[in-house]
Amino acid sequence: MEKIRAGIIGATGMVGQNYVRLLRDHPWFRISYLAASPRSAGKTYTEATAGRWQMEEEIPAEARNLIVGDANDVEASRKNCDFVFSSVEMDKELVRELENKYAAAGLPVVSNNSANRHTPDVPMLIPEINPDHTSLFETQRKNHGWDKGLIVVKPNCSLQSYITPVYALIQAGYPISQMILTTMQAVSGAGYPGVASLDMIDNVVPFIGGEEEKSEREPQKILGKIENGQVVYDQSMKISAHCNRVPVIDGHTACVSIGFGSKKPSIDEIKAIWREFKGVPQELDLPFAPRQPIIYREEKDRPQPRKDRDADKAMAVSVGRLRECHVFDYRFVGLSHNTVRGAAGGGILNAELLKAKGFIG
Amino acid sequence: MEKIRAGIIGATGMVGQNYVRLLRDHPWFRISYLAASPRSAGKTYTEATAGRWQMEEEIPAEARNLIVGDANDVEASRKNCDFVFSSVEMDKELVRELENKYAAAGLPVVSNNSANRHTPDVPMLIPEINPDHTSLFETQRKNHGWDKGLIVVKPNCSLQSYITPVYALIQAGYPISQMILTTMQAVSGAGYPGVASLDMIDNVVPFIGGEEEKSEREPQKILGKIENGQVVYDQSMKISAHCNRVPVIDGHTACVSIGFGSKKPSIDEIKAIWREFKGVPQELDLPFAPRQPIIYREEKDRPQPRKDRDADKAMAVSVGRLRECHVFDYRFVGLSHNTVRGAAGGGILNAELLKAKGFIG
Amino acid sequence: MEKIRAGIIGATGMVGQNYVRLLRDHPWFRISYLAASPRSAGKTYTEATAGRWQMEEEIPAEARNLIVGDANDVEASRKNCDFVFSSVEMDKELVRELENKYAAAGLPVVSNNSANRHTPDVPMLIPEINPDHTSLFETQRKNHGWDKGLIVVKPNCSLQSYITPVYALIQAGYPISQMILTTMQAVSGAGYPGVASLDMIDNVVPFIGGEEEKSEREPQKILGKIENGQVVYDQSMKISAHCNRVPVIDGHTACVSIGFGSKKPSIDEIKAIWREFKGVPQELDLPFAPRQPIIYREEKDRPQPRKDRDADKAMAVSVGRLRECHVFDYRFVGLSHNTVRGAAGGGILNAELLKAKGFIG
Amino acid sequence: MEKIRAGIIGATGMVGQNYVRLLRDHPWFRISYLAASPRSAGKTYTEATAGRWQMEEEIPAEARNLIVGDANDVEASRKNCDFVFSSVEMDKELVRELENKYAAAGLPVVSNNSANRHTPDVPMLIPEINPDHTSLFETQRKNHGWDKGLIVVKPNCSLQSYITPVYALIQAGYPISQMILTTMQAVSGAGYPGVASLDMIDNVVPFIGGEEEKSEREPQKILGKIENGQVVYDQSMKISAHCNRVPVIDGHTACVSIGFGSKKPSIDEIKAIWREFKGVPQELDLPFAPRQPIIYREEKDRPQPRKDRDADKAMAVSVGRLRECHVFDYRFVGLSHNTVRGAAGGGILNAELLKAKGFIG
Repeated sequence: MEKIRAGIIGATGMVGQNYVRLLRDHPWFRISYLAASPRSAGKTYTEATAGRWQMEEEIPAEARNLIVGDANDVEASRKNCDFVFSSVEMDKELVRELENKYAAAGLPVVSNNSANRHTPDVPMLIPEINPDHTSLFETQRKNHGWDKGLIVVKPNCSLQSYITPVYALIQAGYPISQMILTTMQAVSGAGYPGVASLDMIDNVVPFIGGEEEKSEREPQKILGKIENGQVVYDQSMKISAHCNRVPVIDGHTACVSIGFGSKKPSIDEIKAIWREFKGVPQELDLPFAPRQPIIYREEKDRPQPRKDRDADKAMAVSVGRLRECHVFDYRFVGLSHNTVRGAAGGGILNAELLKAKGFIG
Repeated sequence: MEKIRAGIIGATGMVGQNYVRLLRDHPWFRISYLAASPRSAGKTYTEATAGRWQMEEEIPAEARNLIVGDANDVEASRKNCDFVFSSVEMDKELVRELENKYAAAGLPVVSNNSANRHTPDVPMLIPEINPDHTSLFETQRKNHGWDKGLIVVKPNCSLQSYITPVYALIQAGYPISQMILTTMQAVSGAGYPGVASLDMIDNVVPFIGGEEEKSEREPQKILGKIENGQVVYDQSMKISAHCNRVPVIDGHTACVSIGFGSKKPSIDEIKAIWREFKGVPQELDLPFAPRQPIIYREEKDRPQPRKDRDADKAMAVSVGRLRECHVFDYRFVGLSHNTVRGAAGGGILNAELLKAKGFIG
Repeated sequence: MEKIRAGIIGATGMVGQNYVRLLRDHPWFRISYLAASPRSAGKTYTEATAGRWQMEEEIPAEARNLIVGDANDVEASRKNCDFVFSSVEMDKELVRELENKYAAAGLPVVSNNSANRHTPDVPMLIPEINPDHTSLFETQRKNHGWDKGLIVVKPNCSLQSYITPVYALIQAGYPISQMILTTMQAVSGAGYPGVASLDMIDNVVPFIGGEEEKSEREPQKILGKIENGQVVYDQSMKISAHCNRVPVIDGHTACVSIGFGSKKPSIDEIKAIWREFKGVPQELDLPFAPRQPIIYREEKDRPQPRKDRDADKAMAVSVGRLRECHVFDYRFVGLSHNTVRGAAGGGILNAELLKAKGFIG
Repeated sequence: MEKIRAGIIGATGMVGQNYVRLLRDHPWFRISYLAASPRSAGKTYTEATAGRWQMEEEIPAEARNLIVGDANDVEASRKNCDFVFSSVEMDKELVRELENKYAAAGLPVVSNNSANRHTPDVPMLIPEINPDHTSLFETQRKNHGWDKGLIVVKPNCSLQSYITPVYALIQAGYPISQMILTTMQAVSGAGYPGVASLDMIDNVVPFIGGEEEKSEREPQKILGKIENGQVVYDQSMKISAHCNRVPVIDGHTACVSIGFGSKKPSIDEIKAIWREFKGVPQELDLPFAPRQPIIYREEKDRPQPRKDRDADKAMAVSVGRLRECHVFDYRFVGLSHNTVRGAAGGGILNAELLKAKGFIG
């Protein structure tokens, strides 16, 4: 099989670098094109990332000498790609405009940006949770008159530590009515240079701009139902999020208290639900799908970011410390890798789902 | 005025070292005696702490050459001290036994240990909150037949980041019915060597043995009422605590969500209550009392441990980020210095209250 | 005595903030004026530093409401100050030009910048080492036709960990011919935001732009002799420096190997020389002078940044681990506080020396 | 080919855990037996390491349920293994005794301990440098009357960051006469719990017990010549080492100044020598051999531990910043992974060399 040609728009930032790193030897996709700001355009990818390549591995051979294009040059992408990953760093308004142009040019856009997350006809996908939201593409194409183009987004990285475990319980028939959670988030989430070391040595910063709002609102769309080609936001679960930055390179940790509605599972039932949880990516055996999306750890002091973030290609959520809550019903700790599952890896899984469903390739 | 003679039992551990450091130039107390395990007995304090003096300042001149006594030798303390600070590190059963012996010998014992925290006739004091609990000394003396001896304890360090702000609201007429909180606690709370650096570089540990239980149960006693010479635990506030260890030297941070009962103050009222809050230590102008026990910070990203832990001699609680909670009523961040307010400094404030009330000296 | 009016030019950066912090309650100087870039001009100092005040203490009351002036407005300084501290952050050429303007306006300029460090008629002062270099002011005034104005600079922060111990030995009659040293430097040296946390968590960066060159060349001027109103650089000591950035907030550590010329002291002699070393600041009892400029620590694992940086108001150099070197003669570890002794505190000590010598006030 | 049966004696410590982790899917060896202290004996490996498994990956399936034996029971090893890796943590005298017993029982012992490093008839191997030192086995067997048994050791982890680059130059015909170096060593080198987090947050410890002595003396044996079945230590290179502990998980960094004897290569020659350097492991294509033992990085700020420690399976040495030294001839920075190349990975490479030479299997 000839591999599908993937472009990366915004290839020189942290998320773009992760796409380049993670797509090495991908069985279905190959990097055919890289684009970034006009400042980088015309340079090789090695030159364009000189002094700011942040990955722990070298630039993969296939990307090293690619000539970086201008992200605004949609036509170049159209010629060189079957679809694009979008991780440009711009004002939201400009991102929306640019992603629309790519879609209008017939390119599926798999976006990592927050700009289109609440655009009504754009699905915010976690393939294990709401793969059916791809039906919004029909609405999207109708609204815009697009033919093969489309836009799909992924949610904010902070959600990933708890949304899948929470969804698994809801799906098993135990609706959750209340959730209070506190995140301890890694510095890689802020890009490079991002958080100053003066703020992170011997310190914690109890604030991340916009993060609490995203953590509270995005689940409503992800868990929403599609009715008449629209997402109806699910407002049945009240969420309160406290977001903190801590001196950790990768891996967001969340301490979560949940209260169920009328029915409440036992601790053993919850563990069983989590262990047995599978979604469409597992059924389709997508290349980036973790075999087990939720890994429950029985040790009393896990999950921990340094030890658990890389579980199952850094795509699984690790949970632990499930115990009774004295205010709601239960408490637990969730953890996921913010730059893999929470960013580029999540984007790749979205693209794989689209390929499997015939929207890409 | 001749200074009151203070002994420190358990003088070589981290808390003991903090007592030695903080009592330098105390206006009322002077260190007259230091005791530790038999292993240290007979050495000068400098020798006994060689290689494990953890304070950032040198050993104060007055303590440097004191000959360390054996903590089990109660008679030596009786001769040399008017009262003792107890920070021995032993099994709870042994601590209780030892503290009883000291009290029986006529010495007031100001303890930092958890052993006697739930002993019914021992007050667990935060002088700004429950100074009236000193009335338990009468019960205590009656129960044991003690004359001048007594035992007072202070609560666990993790509480201090939120219990005073919470109490200020209750006292102002706004009972709280529900509280869910997550702490991010400093490594100094675990003593030395304590937490391994392999667990704290690029990592967070979402578990501290016994800490969540203490955080949930101790407030019930502190907020309790004295009836017939007994503390009646206050069970009106449901608490759920998630306790984490983070790579911070000093300063425990807490992210707190609170739900009021029938009445709920506005954000402005809460800030005013906190700003105006004063307790008995402030009225009596005790040497270690912070002028303002609760400092509200308006910056969007404060309090932070490295920047706020030392506020007002490290005895004030800093709070910030008061905002609505989408599940309960409000959310805020609290912070206090765990080894000063939360340990030795809190013990000294207790001793000062006892002196002011005539129980010491 | 009326206090001397000190201005701070470049008051909003990290070094400027340290000046503001350290001058609180200075016995001789009071902050009469603050200036910064046009962007800050017209704001109160509190407003101008909002969100970037990095000190662990609050802004001192006397500075909080001062209206920040424009650093380019020399006339405003002339009216409001008896002298100025300069810590502007600009291109070297612009710094030189600006400092000249201030001096031409009759203001002594105590500079923290590197711009004028090798200007022939500008002394690079460490008051314990080369207080006689103030004789260059005469040359300076003659060259420029200045009346009361003058410029004095301090050396780079990285030197301070070893130059004073090294000088003490030279002064005692033991010239050093060779020195190889490796520094482990704190992140505060790079200002704010400075070093990215992604570079400093679980990492070391073995490079700091320009730092090795400064470490090697500046000692030649400091140790130079004044002949005919000129500094003759001392090139008798060959120096090789390896400079590294490590995850430490404050405090530069240096591992130093030294080789003597014809004569070599014993280990005991060296310790005695260091312990007894005093300079002009100690003789004059200047307010910021450490009582003992060099503190030798006998512990096998000291000095350490977190434990020793604050020694004697953070103005002393701590040394330890003096032992034989298998290549040169001896090895030791030196440490000093980079933002106090190595920056603002060093500047204040320079100003105090100038005041004592009648150049200021 | 049937895999060779490898035992790990001291399997529960940090180095033992690394052996277990790294031997997963080894093409030549399989873990046939695990032994530890009597306290662990009789438990499964999972039970024996519960709460102290420090690796970021799970225990490999093949080791999880192995019943741990008693390290003192040599007979059990003899029955179950073709050779053993020794990483016991005991007094040196006991280690020597134990390793002798294993060798006497006919088992090749590939040791990670320092106990036998200077035993005259035991080779201290770095396969790229002194593979010919295996000729000492003949002496060894003669001395002890051993038949198939033997003992081989690897040097201290701190050496690996510079000894191979230094050797490459010597081998190319440029003897080095002087070397002064400073290491910044990772905390994993101290095992678990090892270094306290109170010593490693916002701090550096400029001392590691015994490390400087090893860094200075071990190269003499490694670079020594075999004459008449003995190693003649090479004392032609004077070495002075300053060893520091820094807040890094894995990866030792060294800042090195070197002075050549009569002949001195150019910078370009040195880079070429390093790039082209190959040893016996590369010629034999041993499974754990890095393809390129020395990787030169041209970036101005590399190598860095977090970014370069994992180069080529964490078995390569990364060097950078080669530049002139103002005291000796050149300076550079070297880096290697202390728990892989510097411990278990180095041990495995030793075993592979022995297998290739017919001493094992």
